Amino acid sequence: MDTKSEKRLERIKNTIRTYVNFPKEGIVFRDVFPLFQDPSVLEDVMALFEEHIRSLAPPKVGAIIGLESRGFLFGPTLALRLGLPFVPVRKAGKLPGKVVSAAYQLEYGSDRFELQESSITPAGLPVVIVDDLLATGGSLKTAIKLVEQCGGTVRSAAVVIELADLAGRKQVSSPVFALVQY
Amino acid sequence: MDTKSEKRLERIKNTIRTYVNFPKEGIVFRDVFPLFQDPSVLEDVMALFEEHIRSLAPPKVGAIIGLESRGFLFGPTLALRLGLPFVPVRKAGKLPGKVVSAAYQLEYGSDRFELQESSITPAGLPVVIVDDLLATGGSLKTAIKLVEQCGGTVRSAAVVIELADLAGRKQVSSPVFALVQY
Repeated sequence: MDTKSEKRLERIKNTIRTYVNFPKEGIVFRDVFPLFQDPSVLEDVMALFEEHIRSLAPPKVGAIIGLESRGFLFGPTLALRLGLPFVPVRKAGKLPGKVVSAAYQLEYGSDRFELQESSITPAGLPVVIVDDLLATGGSLKTAIKLVEQCGGTVRSAAVVIELADLAGRKQVSSPVFALVQY
Repeated sequence: MDTKSEKRLERIKNTIRTYVNFPKEGIVFRDVFPLFQDPSVLEDVMALFEEHIRSLAPPKVGAIIGLESRGFLFGPTLALRLGLPFVPVRKAGKLPGKVVSAAYQLEYGSDRFELQESSITPAGLPVVIVDDLLATGGSLKTAIKLVEQCGGTVRSAAVVIELADLAGRKQVSSPVFALVQY
């Protein structure tokens, strides 16, 4: 990694805030929203994600997938910068048309994700999934499963924060690119 | 509006899809996600929003506010283009620190929004709220209330789609800028 990228990472690390016992007792919450308070730091995040995606070996990535709701914060900006479609993975019941669907466990709680079948074309489409955080890997694993069910291939899962203690990386079949690890 | 902007709007109108009886019987659902399938059309959306925000009379807008979750699709991109902070209004229980909170009615269902008190500084900060859709105006009205409780001033609420029949515009105290009306 070059000096410019190292400086970007340093600014990102210094901007993420930590809250103890949020949203409930015993959880250490890493807050990505301070990154959005300073557009120059948000630019650092987007630039590093973009650099990562452009650096992937062929075949060329064909779409950016973002998980509801915090993946929505990064996906469209990246898709625009890369000239690619942005495709949402949403909570159950929110996407019209034919969808594939699967339940997942969260660090706290559970939920259900859906993806529109028609959004992953042509068959074999290489995609990158973006999200804010990799914790236990439950939501990411489910998103990968949905993409694969629709015929896509996940080339990378790019997250701002990886909670390495929770070993989410081991739960998912795709490579993981994390800007910051705790 | 110049010819370039008219062409942008035309492409946006032609890209939005309509689903009848989704998510439940009697609802006509206008889907903004096809806009994200084509980066050139997403660029049209962002360019028109940016143009609108830059055209507002002084004082200069100091932050972009996005409502969870579909406002998250537009807010960070716009904030980066304008060199401004992006501030989220989130569903209850998701924002750490001191928050202001209020319930609201949706076109179908109800929910609760929160905003971090510290996110609106200095006092009197002029902001623009972005979201995908203005329906009955319930969520937007609540977001404006929260911004004002934190000392901010909403200069404009910018949405992709306005369902004019539902008269949401009459429910909110700020000006509304809508790209497409039905």
